[in-house]
Amino acid sequence: MTIDINTKTDFPGSSAANWELDRIVQELRSARNDWRNQRGRSREPGLRELPSRDALQNIIRDLCGALFPMRLGPQELREETEDYYVGHTLDAALNELLQQVQLELSYAARQQGSVVSEATQKHQAQQIVRLFASALPGLRRILDVDIQAAFQGDPAARSVDEVLLCYPGVLAIIHHRLAHSLYKLGVPLLARIVAELAHSLTGIDIHPGADIGSGFFIDHGTGVVIGETAVIGERVRIYQAVTLGAKTFPAEENGALKKGLPRHPIVEDDVVIYAGATVLGRITIGKGSTIGGNVWLTRSVPSGSSITQASSRNLFPQEAPV
Amino acid sequence: MTIDINTKTDFPGSSAANWELDRIVQELRSARNDWRNQRGRSREPGLRELPSRDALQNIIRDLCGALFPMRLGPQELREETEDYYVGHTLDAALNELLQQVQLELSYAARQQGSVVSEATQKHQAQQIVRLFASALPGLRRILDVDIQAAFQGDPAARSVDEVLLCYPGVLAIIHHRLAHSLYKLGVPLLARIVAELAHSLTGIDIHPGADIGSGFFIDHGTGVVIGETAVIGERVRIYQAVTLGAKTFPAEENGALKKGLPRHPIVEDDVVIYAGATVLGRITIGKGSTIGGNVWLTRSVPSGSSITQASSRNLFPQEAPV
Amino acid sequence: MTIDINTKTDFPGSSAANWELDRIVQELRSARNDWRNQRGRSREPGLRELPSRDALQNIIRDLCGALFPMRLGPQELREETEDYYVGHTLDAALNELLQQVQLELSYAARQQGSVVSEATQKHQAQQIVRLFASALPGLRRILDVDIQAAFQGDPAARSVDEVLLCYPGVLAIIHHRLAHSLYKLGVPLLARIVAELAHSLTGIDIHPGADIGSGFFIDHGTGVVIGETAVIGERVRIYQAVTLGAKTFPAEENGALKKGLPRHPIVEDDVVIYAGATVLGRITIGKGSTIGGNVWLTRSVPSGSSITQASSRNLFPQEAPV
Amino acid sequence: MTIDINTKTDFPGSSAANWELDRIVQELRSARNDWRNQRGRSREPGLRELPSRDALQNIIRDLCGALFPMRLGPQELREETEDYYVGHTLDAALNELLQQVQLELSYAARQQGSVVSEATQKHQAQQIVRLFASALPGLRRILDVDIQAAFQGDPAARSVDEVLLCYPGVLAIIHHRLAHSLYKLGVPLLARIVAELAHSLTGIDIHPGADIGSGFFIDHGTGVVIGETAVIGERVRIYQAVTLGAKTFPAEENGALKKGLPRHPIVEDDVVIYAGATVLGRITIGKGSTIGGNVWLTRSVPSGSSITQASSRNLFPQEAPV
Amino acid sequence: MTIDINTKTDFPGSSAANWELDRIVQELRSARNDWRNQRGRSREPGLRELPSRDALQNIIRDLCGALFPMRLGPQELREETEDYYVGHTLDAALNELLQQVQLELSYAARQQGSVVSEATQKHQAQQIVRLFASALPGLRRILDVDIQAAFQGDPAARSVDEVLLCYPGVLAIIHHRLAHSLYKLGVPLLARIVAELAHSLTGIDIHPGADIGSGFFIDHGTGVVIGETAVIGERVRIYQAVTLGAKTFPAEENGALKKGLPRHPIVEDDVVIYAGATVLGRITIGKGSTIGGNVWLTRSVPSGSSITQASSRNLFPQEAPV
Amino acid sequence: MTIDINTKTDFPGSSAANWELDRIVQELRSARNDWRNQRGRSREPGLRELPSRDALQNIIRDLCGALFPMRLGPQELREETEDYYVGHTLDAALNELLQQVQLELSYAARQQGSVVSEATQKHQAQQIVRLFASALPGLRRILDVDIQAAFQGDPAARSVDEVLLCYPGVLAIIHHRLAHSLYKLGVPLLARIVAELAHSLTGIDIHPGADIGSGFFIDHGTGVVIGETAVIGERVRIYQAVTLGAKTFPAEENGALKKGLPRHPIVEDDVVIYAGATVLGRITIGKGSTIGGNVWLTRSVPSGSSITQASSRNLFPQEAPV
Repeated sequence: MTIDINTKTDFPGSSAANWELDRIVQELRSARNDWRNQRGRSREPGLRELPSRDALQNIIRDLCGALFPMRLGPQELREETEDYYVGHTLDAALNELLQQVQLELSYAARQQGSVVSEATQKHQAQQIVRLFASALPGLRRILDVDIQAAFQGDPAARSVDEVLLCYPGVLAIIHHRLAHSLYKLGVPLLARIVAELAHSLTGIDIHPGADIGSGFFIDHGTGVVIGETAVIGERVRIYQAVTLGAKTFPAEENGALKKGLPRHPIVEDDVVIYAGATVLGRITIGKGSTIGGNVWLTRSVPSGSSITQASSRNLFPQEAPV
Repeated sequence: MTIDINTKTDFPGSSAANWELDRIVQELRSARNDWRNQRGRSREPGLRELPSRDALQNIIRDLCGALFPMRLGPQELREETEDYYVGHTLDAALNELLQQVQLELSYAARQQGSVVSEATQKHQAQQIVRLFASALPGLRRILDVDIQAAFQGDPAARSVDEVLLCYPGVLAIIHHRLAHSLYKLGVPLLARIVAELAHSLTGIDIHPGADIGSGFFIDHGTGVVIGETAVIGERVRIYQAVTLGAKTFPAEENGALKKGLPRHPIVEDDVVIYAGATVLGRITIGKGSTIGGNVWLTRSVPSGSSITQASSRNLFPQEAPV
Repeated sequence: MTIDINTKTDFPGSSAANWELDRIVQELRSARNDWRNQRGRSREPGLRELPSRDALQNIIRDLCGALFPMRLGPQELREETEDYYVGHTLDAALNELLQQVQLELSYAARQQGSVVSEATQKHQAQQIVRLFASALPGLRRILDVDIQAAFQGDPAARSVDEVLLCYPGVLAIIHHRLAHSLYKLGVPLLARIVAELAHSLTGIDIHPGADIGSGFFIDHGTGVVIGETAVIGERVRIYQAVTLGAKTFPAEENGALKKGLPRHPIVEDDVVIYAGATVLGRITIGKGSTIGGNVWLTRSVPSGSSITQASSRNLFPQEAPV
Repeated sequence: MTIDINTKTDFPGSSAANWELDRIVQELRSARNDWRNQRGRSREPGLRELPSRDALQNIIRDLCGALFPMRLGPQELREETEDYYVGHTLDAALNELLQQVQLELSYAARQQGSVVSEATQKHQAQQIVRLFASALPGLRRILDVDIQAAFQGDPAARSVDEVLLCYPGVLAIIHHRLAHSLYKLGVPLLARIVAELAHSLTGIDIHPGADIGSGFFIDHGTGVVIGETAVIGERVRIYQAVTLGAKTFPAEENGALKKGLPRHPIVEDDVVIYAGATVLGRITIGKGSTIGGNVWLTRSVPSGSSITQASSRNLFPQEAPV
Repeated sequence: MTIDINTKTDFPGSSAANWELDRIVQELRSARNDWRNQRGRSREPGLRELPSRDALQNIIRDLCGALFPMRLGPQELREETEDYYVGHTLDAALNELLQQVQLELSYAARQQGSVVSEATQKHQAQQIVRLFASALPGLRRILDVDIQAAFQGDPAARSVDEVLLCYPGVLAIIHHRLAHSLYKLGVPLLARIVAELAHSLTGIDIHPGADIGSGFFIDHGTGVVIGETAVIGERVRIYQAVTLGAKTFPAEENGALKKGLPRHPIVEDDVVIYAGATVLGRITIGKGSTIGGNVWLTRSVPSGSSITQASSRNLFPQEAPV
Repeated sequence: MTIDINTKTDFPGSSAANWELDRIVQELRSARNDWRNQRGRSREPGLRELPSRDALQNIIRDLCGALFPMRLGPQELREETEDYYVGHTLDAALNELLQQVQLELSYAARQQGSVVSEATQKHQAQQIVRLFASALPGLRRILDVDIQAAFQGDPAARSVDEVLLCYPGVLAIIHHRLAHSLYKLGVPLLARIVAELAHSLTGIDIHPGADIGSGFFIDHGTGVVIGETAVIGERVRIYQAVTLGAKTFPAEENGALKKGLPRHPIVEDDVVIYAGATVLGRITIGKGSTIGGNVWLTRSVPSGSSITQASSRNLFPQEAPV
């Protein structure tokens, strides 16, 4: 595209700009219509029925406050009246979440062309939020173990409070445990949005499907990627830029990929994986192993292994992804 | 610096703090003046004449809404009245953009010491925004192809809507296509600010000068860097931490670097580049090639190549940057 | 967990949801109490006494405006009245900072079980803020050198203003110099929060303890990690995904790590470190050296070295982390 | 109540305040329960189902913008794109109004103990908003006549725009015409809230039931009261502190007052009523009459009358309220 | 002042404005200093120590929500979780109030030149807020009677909820009962600010010192003035523009007025006072009396009186204020 | 209008509402066009060029802070740094005011069909704001006298600070003195908007043209009206609901009223006017006079007069307005 921005155009005697807005609005409509037609979308008038990133951001902020009132709640909160704050904030967050769950359920129904009565959908949404709410106290207990692990895992950490307030890895695991709970309850889109909120804040990208044991700690964190079917044991510690990914997406017979097949690593208890290591495929890293920085690993290793760049070159000289 | 914070200082009978503000304000002024004198900046009273990051954030948010009203517009929007929303939002965004374009043009003129009449500058700004606006419908059509590619490229994706709502790679490409349009229209500073907004949100750093074909998809994305003169074909897919960079900045005769010389890779159609690969210099990756994870590549490869860490060590044993 | 979200539950004749909020609030309280008991926390009613991330975000935003009024201050500011803006904004920021410093000091005292009179604590806090304020003009002069270095270090940069407005590396170094000043004055928690604000915005993770000379420039930046005891000379330039880390945390006799031991690299003047390089341990990179992309380095190199992946493999064939 | 604020109370060793919050919350609940029991309110859990003053404030602000886009719409609006603004703003306002109408209808149904299906209620609400929307263009035309009358009625007025921007009487009549439209469509509670918004802003208290012809102008306005069944003709002008009230509320047989009986004045075309005049009861002020300042009037006067304090004392020497 | 706005003044070659800000700032300082010197104000550096209108506005809004959660609380509140909302909101409001009370106490101490230890002052403030909080449930019960009276007193009222939501008279009495409570507890400045918030919203001006029985109702209300020492019995009803004022402020011997002397009317139970009536001086209106519209009354009337303009002229022909 | 809201209308198989928005937008456009055609308004595209009430509200708030920094400025301001706050706030307010002045000047030029170059208009606007700014210190000194008068005039006032913080009469006179300054400088529309802001907050309606001496105090204030050509001396005190109005607007020969003719009262020094008094026409109330409550006065009275309802009935038995 060559543009001559000095060409005189006709703004007849007017100081105001003229964007030919009508034309552009019309062309944008055409583009939308073409896209909708391609995708077979009906044109019935209706509200936008997609969950909202902003709404989930508020919900998560409130849930963080309800889970850790004296540390992530409002500045002026006093311990003697915590329960009022927790109850009120939780109620608001759950009601707001109920709306978002309904949006996802009705979106999913439309996507699948299934017919579900509004009452049934509402009932399902209430059930989901109810179960989600019930799980929160247990989730808080697990997070306490995670925070304790972060505190012990970093020699620079001065207190558990500092860890909760500052560490992106802790922020990421709080988001993940909430997102994973939503994922298991059947609202994967909400779960994904929550995961992406954490990703944007911390550079840590954990798929909400990943199954992670307690006492999990990520240090620094930027560039970490953990895939949907990864399974991580207790007391695992990983560093920045570690990938727990799928090895390859080979073309299958009909060209399509079966969804949900286990394709990410299993990391057993007490494993440490240093920065930049890449672990790919449905392999198992045995209990208590240590994976060195920048190691490239696509085969299982037994319990107690200690893998370095040098040792991995010796062990798997031919190894290479796709 | 040794600091004895227990030394008694004189707050004579007052509970209020005393920052010696006058002295500090004076010293800050000296520092500013020294800097301005060094740079030969005139001291004429004038408004701050630099574009605003906050303003561009609002503009981009509105343009996203105007491009995808039912998915990125306001929650309560209904399809039957989309056009009112699109027209009104677009008008507001373009007027705001006009101001930012004027700020950049007058800033650039001052930088170059060139004398341009205010009327001419205003006319240029209007032309730029007009051309930018005209390009939006086409840009929406290309983005539809990108979104479709993202949906097909990730086996975990459930719908195109999820992709648009959640994927950082999609967020990054929307920002890039808007930034690239501004870049080509002669407002590189605005373009750069838009690119950095995406970088901050997603960890994906695409220079607005990069030329990228349709159907482009970045998965996960954190740590991706794409340089100013990179050229990317159709249907290319890349993963997190991929670098398409310049190989080296050798000292030229007079020590200065010629600006704008092609120095980043050309990636032809249908190429896939896996996570962590580093591709440097004005080399060409032939059509349909696959570059494996963590590969370090500084030489061109023909169409249909499949490069892995192992194969690259064999092909280019001496290869090293700088 | 198997969930049957279709199971009928008893919402007796009511359309409203029922979260059994009382039970959940009670269980959350139990979880908090258990945690507090484990940690020996007294139960005396008291305000949340932890610094606030939001407060520090506002303070930093104001300090940026006071340091660079015509470029990071309010859009409508005029040069002739800068000092009023600087004085007023600085005063507000310092008063707000005073509160945050008091929160950290009283938190630290409680953590250590030490008894400090409120008056002494207030006096200490005032001293800290006073010294912090005094250092700002000098800090501005150093930042001017950093910005100049960024401008010269990137062939794509058009002006120092663009660099200040757009470059994440510049944003990170501004945050770091403020955070480092707080760190040295004895408020490491505030320092850490400031560092994490930069980390979230830029993907650049610099520990506030790191000691960095003037003229420092980070390009692109996502994934950079710089450790607490790193020492960096003048005019150093580094690229994205560079790590200046600790080599290893070997188990000591009693299993605990001595805090604050020098364990991160010393980088001498005029060194350049390219993207993805990993430099680990208390080693020294000699003056004027160049470290190539993706190099893995755990031994000192003399002045003027030029290390590439190939050369490092030859030099340190056995090298591996952990 | 004698209060000794110096009495020592027991805050055992704590600097924090202690409001005995649990007791007060409990007592407030008792008070609410007593009130609800007295009024026979069921205790079923349910959302607050009352319209919201804040919501109506936003709706009115948007409707004002849609009615007078270039004068009460956003500052940056341009005439060529008015319709986009009008359409988008109107749509948002009407959707929000729909919610408020539903709240009133369901509230009214509960008050009356009537059973209406949700679908029927929704349909009624849509009908009401649809009719309200249809009436807006006619309403704008009448308001133009009102504004013209205000301009002509005040020798100090410089332009119709000034009148629209500044005059509380104009603000009041805009609110009234919208409120009256809601009143006639069967949502008197919403109508009343709109009327009270105007009352609070202007000190002018017009019951939404009042029937007012075009070209109506209130000057200054503070203290004006116009009752529910008042009927006002064309081109009437009134000044501050004028009351068009009910004469008396005599005790009827069963002690109750029949609602809706005509009990306020009829003011015919072209009447002027000066400041502080009190006109009470279902009397008629004949066409073209002038009622002087502070006049007290409880009997009808023929067309063309000119009533002053002196003349009224002569005409109706025995006249007195109650 | 004659101003020739066409006179050319010197903006030397600059498009920017020049307010000679330094001079004006200096002159404003002189004016402040002169004023402070006149009033003998010391110049010690100190914070502004006056209560804040904005803070009290928030406190009142929260107290209204805590008193009437389902009607003045947040839209989405549900009855089953009211107590959490009430407790949390009340706690926040009382803490905020505590700060404002401390500001008034320390302001009052400075005004009187009295020396009170900070600890004593803090203790007093806590006592005041504690007693204020304790009185809230009783206050709610009285307000329920007021609301009931408003509902019964206006034939146009449809429900107690409408009355609470819409009636300025009800808004004013809620503010008054809170303000009166503060007044009696020794913080008259806070009380006055609360009274003025109501005055600004409703045009009803009740001095916080006025002592008002339950079942009080003001209809319409604009222009009502009730003085500091007025005493009003049970079930009194008054209309707009009624004044219960002091008759006169005669010059006393030394020219000063004794503060707090009873100088406003006593209105006994079951009195009705119609619009515009003026009742002045420490007179008594006997139980069950009716005072007609615009009546001017400066003498006591016995129980059961019915006073009209005509009758008052006959009864008190010489009566006149001042 | 008879409305059957139960009539079935056609929402064909859709749950969404349908406002026939296109039709209504079209009809609103017709109404606007008719109005514009009637008024001979050109249709050239242009920005809304009317001053903004919101902008003036912000300007006044900032000017109040700059005039009384320690009492109306920000809560956390300290006396030692007042000047920074005053300078910065004033600069922002004056720049914002400059824009509003330009809007009024260009609006006025368009209204009068006069042709003024943009540069001339800009210059005029700068002159106006410059003169306005210059007058602020003097204005502060006069306001100090007003505040002192308020403090002395009300036996219930405890301090000058309370008076400044709480009294609507003081709020009104601050607004008036600013508005009057704008009025005299040739921007009557801005002046009027400022006056109406005060009117809405306080119920006190002072035309910005009124000329008012120092030491002026209005007590309570609701319902006060002071006309454009009123002249008020030093140390005058008035009470609520006092009118200083025009006596009558008799039809002149050509039916039009000459603008700006003196038509409101002259009130000499040291006059007191009690509540509800009505003073009409270009009469003079002599120095030191007292006008009693509810007096109706349309003839001049000599110095030292004391007028009551009774005496006025004797003095002017025939007196009546209109």
